[in-house]
Amino acid sequence: MNYPTGLNKKWTKPVTYNNRGMTLEEDINLTNDYYLEIDKAIIHKKPTPVQVVKVDYPSRDKAVIKEAYYVVPSTTDYNGVYKGHYIDFEAKETNTLNFPLQNIHKHQIIHLDKITKHHGISFLIVRFIKLNETYLLKTEDLISFINENTRKSIPYEYFKEKGYLIDFKYNPRLDYLKIVDDLIEGV
Amino acid sequence: MNYPTGLNKKWTKPVTYNNRGMTLEEDINLTNDYYLEIDKAIIHKKPTPVQVVKVDYPSRDKAVIKEAYYVVPSTTDYNGVYKGHYIDFEAKETNTLNFPLQNIHKHQIIHLDKITKHHGISFLIVRFIKLNETYLLKTEDLISFINENTRKSIPYEYFKEKGYLIDFKYNPRLDYLKIVDDLIEGV
Repeated sequence: MNYPTGLNKKWTKPVTYNNRGMTLEEDINLTNDYYLEIDKAIIHKKPTPVQVVKVDYPSRDKAVIKEAYYVVPSTTDYNGVYKGHYIDFEAKETNTLNFPLQNIHKHQIIHLDKITKHHGISFLIVRFIKLNETYLLKTEDLISFINENTRKSIPYEYFKEKGYLIDFKYNPRLDYLKIVDDLIEGV
Repeated sequence: MNYPTGLNKKWTKPVTYNNRGMTLEEDINLTNDYYLEIDKAIIHKKPTPVQVVKVDYPSRDKAVIKEAYYVVPSTTDYNGVYKGHYIDFEAKETNTLNFPLQNIHKHQIIHLDKITKHHGISFLIVRFIKLNETYLLKTEDLISFINENTRKSIPYEYFKEKGYLIDFKYNPRLDYLKIVDDLIEGV
Protein backbone atom coordinates (compact mmCIF):
# COMPACT_ATOMS: atom_id res chain seq x y z
CA MET A 1 0.00 0.00 0.00
CA ASN A 2 1.44 3.33 -1.03
CA TYR A 3 0.62 6.37 1.05
CA PRO A 4 0.90 9.63 -0.86
CA THR A 5 3.17 11.95 1.05
CA GLY A 6 2.14 15.46 1.92
CA LEU A 7 -1.59 14.94 1.60
CA ASN A 8 -1.97 14.24 5.28
CA LYS A 9 -1.18 17.77 6.41
CA LYS A 10 -3.13 19.35 3.61
CA TRP A 11 -6.39 17.72 4.62
CA THR A 12 -6.15 17.83 8.37
CA LYS A 13 -9.02 19.86 9.73
CA PRO A 14 -8.05 22.66 12.12
CA VAL A 15 -9.03 21.77 15.69
CA THR A 16 -10.19 24.50 18.01
CA TYR A 17 -9.32 23.94 21.64
CA ASN A 18 -12.09 25.90 23.30
CA ASN A 19 -14.13 24.48 26.12
CA ARG A 20 -17.48 24.51 24.41
CA GLY A 21 -18.76 21.66 22.37
CA MET A 22 -15.77 19.35 22.56
CA THR A 23 -16.97 15.90 21.71
CA LEU A 24 -16.09 12.89 23.84
CA GLU A 25 -13.92 11.67 20.99
CA GLU A 26 -11.96 14.93 20.92
CA ASP A 27 -11.50 14.84 24.70
CA ILE A 28 -10.26 11.25 24.60
CA ASN A 29 -7.92 12.00 21.72
CA LEU A 30 -6.45 14.97 23.63
CA THR A 31 -6.10 12.77 26.70
CA ASN A 32 -4.33 10.05 24.71
CA ASP A 33 -2.04 12.65 23.12
CA TYR A 34 -1.16 13.85 26.61
CA TYR A 35 -0.48 10.31 27.86
CA LEU A 36 1.74 9.77 24.83
CA GLU A 37 3.60 13.03 25.39
CA ILE A 38 4.40 12.31 29.04
CA ASP A 39 5.17 8.69 28.06
CA LYS A 40 2.53 7.29 30.41
CA ALA A 41 0.67 5.06 27.95
CA ILE A 42 0.39 4.35 24.23
CA ILE A 43 -3.29 4.36 23.36
CA HIS A 44 -4.61 5.29 19.92
CA LYS A 45 -7.94 5.57 18.22
CA LYS A 46 -8.28 3.12 15.37
CA PRO A 47 -9.08 4.56 11.96
CA THR A 48 -12.72 4.36 10.92
CA PRO A 49 -13.04 1.32 8.67
CA VAL A 50 -13.84 2.15 5.07
CA GLN A 51 -14.39 -0.17 2.12
CA VAL A 52 -12.76 1.43 -0.88
CA VAL A 53 -14.44 0.67 -4.21
CA LYS A 54 -12.92 3.13 -6.66
CA VAL A 55 -9.57 4.91 -6.65
CA ASP A 56 -8.30 7.42 -9.21
CA TYR A 57 -4.64 8.21 -9.81
CA PRO A 58 -4.55 11.71 -11.30
CA SER A 59 -0.76 11.65 -11.03
CA ARG A 60 1.88 9.09 -10.08
CA ASP A 61 2.05 9.99 -6.41
CA LYS A 62 -1.59 10.76 -5.78
CA ALA A 63 -4.43 8.41 -5.03
CA VAL A 64 -7.90 9.89 -4.79
CA ILE A 65 -10.60 7.64 -3.41
CA LYS A 66 -13.72 8.35 -5.48
CA GLU A 67 -16.11 5.78 -4.06
CA ALA A 68 -16.03 4.19 -0.61
CA TYR A 69 -18.42 3.09 2.13
CA TYR A 70 -18.34 3.03 5.88
CA VAL A 71 -18.33 -0.53 7.19
CA VAL A 72 -19.27 -1.87 10.59
CA PRO A 73 -16.12 -1.98 12.76
CA SER A 74 -15.17 -5.46 13.94
CA THR A 75 -13.61 -4.22 17.15
CA THR A 76 -13.68 -1.15 19.39
CA ASP A 77 -12.36 2.34 18.72
CA TYR A 78 -9.46 2.54 21.17
CA ASN A 79 -6.70 0.22 22.23
CA GLY A 80 -3.13 0.25 23.39
CA VAL A 81 -0.73 -0.51 26.23
CA TYR A 82 -0.43 0.84 29.77
CA LYS A 83 2.04 -0.55 32.32
CA GLY A 84 2.34 -3.63 30.13
CA HIS A 85 -1.42 -4.21 30.20
CA TYR A 86 -3.51 -4.40 27.07
CA ILE A 87 -6.20 -1.68 27.18
CA ASP A 88 -9.32 -1.77 24.99
CA PHE A 89 -12.43 0.37 25.11
CA GLU A 90 -15.33 1.91 23.28
CA ALA A 91 -16.59 5.47 23.95
CA LYS A 92 -20.11 6.77 23.37
CA GLU A 93 -22.13 9.87 24.09
CA THR A 94 -25.80 9.98 24.97
CA ASN A 95 -28.19 12.91 24.99
CA THR A 96 -30.61 11.30 27.41
CA LEU A 97 -30.32 9.85 30.91
CA ASN A 98 -30.18 6.40 29.39
CA PHE A 99 -27.50 4.71 27.37
CA PRO A 100 -29.27 2.87 24.52
CA LEU A 101 -27.64 -0.52 24.01
CA GLN A 102 -28.19 -0.21 20.27
CA ASN A 103 -25.45 2.47 20.34
CA ILE A 104 -22.88 -0.29 20.69
CA HIS A 105 -22.70 -3.19 18.22
CA LYS A 106 -23.27 -6.66 19.63
CA HIS A 107 -19.94 -7.92 18.28
CA GLN A 108 -18.21 -5.00 20.00
CA ILE A 109 -19.66 -6.19 23.31
CA ILE A 110 -18.50 -9.72 22.52
CA HIS A 111 -15.07 -8.30 21.69
CA LEU A 112 -14.86 -6.43 25.02
CA ASP A 113 -15.87 -9.60 26.84
CA LYS A 114 -13.19 -11.64 25.07
CA ILE A 115 -10.54 -9.07 25.93
CA THR A 116 -11.36 -9.37 29.63
CA LYS A 117 -11.20 -13.17 29.39
CA HIS A 118 -7.75 -12.85 27.80
CA HIS A 119 -6.57 -10.77 30.77
CA GLY A 120 -6.74 -7.46 28.97
CA ILE A 121 -8.46 -4.46 30.57
CA SER A 122 -11.61 -3.50 28.72
CA PHE A 123 -14.40 -1.08 29.45
CA LEU A 124 -16.98 1.31 28.07
CA ILE A 125 -16.78 5.10 28.46
CA VAL A 126 -20.14 6.88 28.32
CA ARG A 127 -20.74 10.61 28.47
CA PHE A 128 -24.11 11.94 29.57
CA ILE A 129 -24.00 15.17 27.58
CA LYS A 130 -26.74 17.00 29.49
CA LEU A 131 -25.04 16.36 32.83
CA ASN A 132 -21.54 16.80 31.43
CA GLU A 133 -20.57 13.63 33.30
CA THR A 134 -18.43 10.86 31.85
CA TYR A 135 -18.35 7.36 33.32
CA LEU A 136 -16.14 4.36 32.90
CA LEU A 137 -18.05 1.09 33.14
CA LYS A 138 -16.15 -2.17 33.38
CA THR A 139 -17.04 -4.75 30.76
CA GLU A 140 -18.15 -7.23 33.42
CA ASP A 141 -20.69 -4.71 34.72
CA LEU A 142 -21.87 -4.01 31.17
CA ILE A 143 -22.33 -7.74 30.55
CA SER A 144 -24.04 -8.23 33.93
CA PHE A 145 -26.58 -5.57 33.09
CA ILE A 146 -27.34 -7.15 29.72
CA ASN A 147 -27.67 -10.62 31.24
CA GLU A 148 -29.83 -9.55 34.16
CA ASN A 149 -32.15 -7.10 32.40
CA THR A 150 -34.53 -7.05 29.49
CA ARG A 151 -34.24 -3.25 29.12
CA LYS A 152 -32.78 -1.96 25.89
CA SER A 153 -30.92 0.87 27.58
CA ILE A 154 -28.80 1.27 30.68
CA PRO A 155 -30.10 3.98 33.02
CA TYR A 156 -27.83 6.71 34.34
CA GLU A 157 -28.32 5.35 37.87
CA TYR A 158 -26.56 2.12 36.92
CA PHE A 159 -23.48 4.08 35.82
CA LYS A 160 -23.63 6.08 39.05
CA GLU A 161 -23.82 2.87 41.07
CA LYS A 162 -21.43 0.56 39.20
CA GLY A 163 -19.34 2.92 37.08
CA TYR A 164 -16.54 5.35 37.87
CA LEU A 165 -16.94 9.07 37.27
CA ILE A 166 -13.95 10.30 35.24
CA ASP A 167 -12.37 13.59 36.35
CA PHE A 168 -12.74 16.35 33.79
CA LYS A 169 -9.88 18.84 33.91
CA TYR A 170 -7.61 20.88 31.71
CA ASN A 171 -4.89 18.31 31.21
CA PRO A 172 -5.34 15.41 30.89
CA ARG A 173 -8.85 16.20 29.80
CA LEU A 174 -10.35 12.90 30.94
CA ASP A 175 -7.97 11.07 33.23
CA TYR A 176 -9.38 7.59 32.74
CA LEU A 177 -6.06 5.88 33.49
CA LYS A 178 -6.45 6.99 37.12
CA ILE A 179 -9.41 4.61 37.23
CA VAL A 180 -7.58 1.95 35.24
CA ASP A 181 -4.95 1.98 38.00
CA ASP A 182 -7.65 0.70 40.36
CA LEU A 183 -8.81 -1.88 37.84
CA ILE A 184 -5.26 -3.19 37.42
CA GLU A 185 -5.20 -4.04 41.12
CA GLY A 186 -8.05 -6.45 40.44
CA VAL A 187 -6.50 -8.19 37.42
CA MET B 1 -21.03 7.84 13.76
CA ASN B 2 -23.67 5.95 11.81
CA TYR B 3 -22.65 2.87 9.93
CA PRO B 4 -25.01 1.99 7.14
CA THR B 5 -26.17 -1.55 7.62
CA GLY B 6 -25.97 -4.09 4.86
CA LEU B 7 -23.34 -2.31 2.81
CA ASN B 8 -20.56 -4.28 4.42
CA LYS B 9 -21.52 -7.58 2.90
CA LYS B 10 -22.35 -6.10 -0.44
CA TRP B 11 -18.87 -4.71 -0.99
CA THR B 12 -16.75 -7.45 0.52
CA LYS B 13 -14.49 -8.86 -2.15
CA PRO B 14 -14.54 -12.62 -2.54
CA VAL B 15 -11.35 -14.15 -1.16
CA THR B 16 -9.86 -17.16 -2.88
CA TYR B 17 -8.10 -19.56 -0.55
CA ASN B 18 -5.71 -21.18 -2.96
CA ASN B 19 -2.03 -21.54 -2.21
CA ARG B 20 -0.72 -19.38 -5.02
CA GLY B 21 -0.18 -15.70 -4.62
CA MET B 22 -1.47 -15.23 -1.10
CA THR B 23 -0.06 -12.01 0.19
CA LEU B 24 1.57 -11.75 3.59
CA GLU B 25 -1.39 -9.66 4.72
CA GLU B 26 -3.83 -12.39 3.68
CA ASP B 27 -1.78 -15.06 5.45
CA ILE B 28 -1.63 -13.00 8.64
CA ASN B 29 -5.34 -12.25 8.50
CA LEU B 30 -6.12 -15.97 8.12
CA THR B 31 -3.78 -16.72 11.00
CA ASN B 32 -5.44 -14.12 13.21
CA ASP B 33 -8.88 -15.45 12.26
CA TYR B 34 -7.70 -18.90 13.31
CA TYR B 35 -6.30 -17.64 16.62
CA LEU B 36 -9.62 -15.88 17.24
CA GLU B 37 -11.59 -19.00 16.37
CA ILE B 38 -9.69 -21.28 18.73
CA ASP B 39 -9.72 -18.46 21.32
CA LYS B 40 -5.93 -18.30 21.52
CA ALA B 41 -5.44 -14.57 20.97
CA ILE B 42 -7.35 -11.49 19.88
CA ILE B 43 -5.26 -9.75 17.25
CA HIS B 44 -6.73 -7.62 14.49
CA LYS B 45 -5.49 -5.59 11.56
CA LYS B 46 -6.28 -1.92 11.97
CA PRO B 47 -8.28 -0.29 9.18
CA THR B 48 -6.26 1.68 6.64
CA PRO B 49 -6.48 5.33 7.70
CA VAL B 50 -8.42 7.49 5.28
CA GLN B 51 -9.14 11.21 5.39
CA VAL B 52 -12.69 11.69 4.21
CA VAL B 53 -13.33 15.00 2.43
CA LYS B 54 -16.71 14.59 0.79
CA VAL B 55 -19.67 12.36 1.67
CA ASP B 56 -22.96 12.07 -0.21
CA TYR B 57 -26.19 10.80 1.30
CA PRO B 58 -28.26 9.48 -1.60
CA SER B 59 -30.81 8.15 0.91
CA ARG B 60 -31.30 8.36 4.65
CA ASP B 61 -29.41 5.21 5.53
CA LYS B 62 -26.65 5.42 2.98
CA ALA B 63 -23.42 7.35 3.10
CA VAL B 64 -21.25 7.30 0.01
CA ILE B 65 -17.76 8.67 0.37
CA LYS B 66 -17.04 10.58 -2.84
CA GLU B 67 -13.64 12.06 -2.04
CA ALA B 68 -11.05 10.73 0.38
CA TYR B 69 -7.29 10.31 0.64
CA TYR B 70 -4.96 7.75 2.15
CA VAL B 71 -3.05 9.19 5.08
CA VAL B 72 0.17 8.04 6.68
CA PRO B 73 -0.68 5.65 9.54
CA SER B 74 0.46 6.84 12.96
CA THR B 75 0.94 3.34 14.30
CA THR B 76 1.43 -0.19 13.02
CA ASP B 77 -1.02 -2.44 11.20
CA TYR B 78 -1.63 -5.14 13.81
CA ASN B 79 -2.24 -5.19 17.52
CA GLY B 80 -4.07 -7.12 20.17
CA VAL B 81 -3.78 -9.27 23.26
CA TYR B 82 -2.21 -12.69 23.85
CA LYS B 83 -1.97 -14.29 27.30
CA GLY B 84 -2.59 -10.85 28.77
CA HIS B 85 0.33 -9.35 26.85
CA TYR B 86 -0.05 -6.43 24.50
CA ILE B 87 1.09 -7.47 21.01
CA ASP B 88 1.98 -4.95 18.29
CA PHE B 89 3.63 -5.49 14.93
CA GLU B 90 4.08 -4.37 11.37
CA ALA B 91 4.29 -6.77 8.41
CA LYS B 92 6.06 -6.17 5.09
CA GLU B 93 7.00 -8.07 1.99
CA THR B 94 10.14 -7.61 -0.06
CA ASN B 95 10.97 -8.82 -3.54
CA THR B 96 14.72 -8.67 -3.04
CA LEU B 97 17.15 -10.20 -0.54
CA ASN B 98 17.18 -6.91 1.33
CA PHE B 99 14.50 -5.25 3.41
CA PRO B 100 14.58 -1.53 2.48
CA LEU B 101 14.13 0.56 5.63
CA GLN B 102 12.09 3.06 3.65
CA ASN B 103 9.34 0.42 3.55
CA ILE B 104 8.57 1.20 7.17
CA HIS B 105 7.81 4.74 8.35
CA LYS B 106 10.18 6.26 10.88
CA HIS B 107 7.34 6.99 13.31
CA GLN B 108 6.26 3.34 13.07
CA ILE B 109 9.74 2.30 14.21
CA ILE B 110 9.49 4.83 17.06
CA HIS B 111 6.07 3.39 17.91
CA LEU B 112 7.42 -0.18 18.02
CA ASP B 113 10.28 0.98 20.24
CA LYS B 114 7.87 2.71 22.66
CA ILE B 115 5.71 -0.41 22.87
CA THR B 116 8.69 -2.48 23.97
CA LYS B 117 9.61 0.15 26.58
CA HIS B 118 6.04 -0.04 27.92
CA HIS B 119 6.42 -3.82 28.33
CA GLY B 120 4.38 -4.71 25.29
CA ILE B 121 5.67 -7.26 22.78
CA SER B 122 6.49 -5.66 19.45
CA PHE B 123 8.18 -6.90 16.31
CA LEU B 124 8.42 -6.75 12.56
CA ILE B 125 7.36 -9.57 10.24
CA VAL B 126 9.13 -9.61 6.88
CA ARG B 127 8.50 -11.98 4.00
CA PHE B 128 11.18 -12.58 1.40
CA ILE B 129 8.88 -13.38 -1.49
CA LYS B 130 11.48 -15.05 -3.72
CA LEU B 131 12.54 -17.44 -0.95
CA ASN B 132 9.02 -17.87 0.40
CA GLU B 133 10.46 -17.34 3.88
CA THR B 134 8.87 -15.18 6.54
CA TYR B 135 10.82 -13.90 9.54
CA LEU B 136 9.89 -12.32 12.83
CA LEU B 137 12.44 -9.72 13.95
CA LYS B 138 12.24 -8.32 17.47
CA THR B 139 12.03 -4.54 17.68
CA GLU B 140 15.27 -4.39 19.69
CA ASP B 141 17.11 -6.15 16.86
CA LEU B 142 15.54 -3.82 14.31
CA ILE B 143 16.64 -0.78 16.34
CA SER B 144 20.12 -2.25 16.89
CA PHE B 145 20.60 -2.65 13.16
CA ILE B 146 19.53 0.94 12.49
CA ASN B 147 21.80 2.29 15.23
CA GLU B 148 24.84 0.25 14.25
CA ASN B 149 24.64 0.55 10.47
CA THR B 150 24.54 3.25 7.85
CA ARG B 151 22.91 0.91 5.30
CA LYS B 152 19.45 1.79 4.10
CA SER B 153 18.32 -1.80 3.96
CA ILE B 154 18.58 -4.83 6.20
CA PRO B 155 20.12 -7.83 4.41
CA TYR B 156 18.48 -11.25 4.46
CA GLU B 157 21.45 -12.60 6.41
CA TYR B 158 20.58 -10.36 9.36
CA PHE B 159 17.08 -11.86 9.52
CA LYS B 160 18.60 -15.33 9.29
CA GLU B 161 20.98 -14.53 12.12
CA LYS B 162 18.80 -12.47 14.50
CA GLY B 163 15.25 -13.21 13.40
CA TYR B 164 13.00 -16.22 13.79
CA LEU B 165 11.75 -18.16 10.76
CA ILE B 166 7.97 -18.51 11.01
CA ASP B 167 6.51 -21.92 10.16
CA PHE B 168 4.32 -21.90 7.08
CA LYS B 169 1.58 -24.48 7.22
CA TYR B 170 -2.06 -25.02 6.42
CA ASN B 171 -3.55 -23.83 9.68
CA PRO B 172 -2.51 -21.56 11.25
CA ARG B 173 -0.93 -20.25 8.10
CA LEU B 174 1.89 -18.39 9.85
CA ASP B 175 2.17 -19.49 13.45
CA TYR B 176 3.96 -16.40 14.77
CA LEU B 177 2.58 -16.83 18.30
CA LYS B 178 4.77 -19.93 18.66
CA ILE B 179 7.71 -17.52 18.48
CA VAL B 180 5.98 -14.96 20.70
CA ASP B 181 5.82 -17.69 23.38
CA ASP B 182 9.62 -17.64 23.44
CA LEU B 183 9.69 -13.84 23.53
CA ILE B 184 7.27 -13.78 26.48
CA GLU B 185 9.81 -15.79 28.47
CA GLY B 186 12.18 -12.86 28.09
CA VAL B 187 9.74 -10.07 29.10
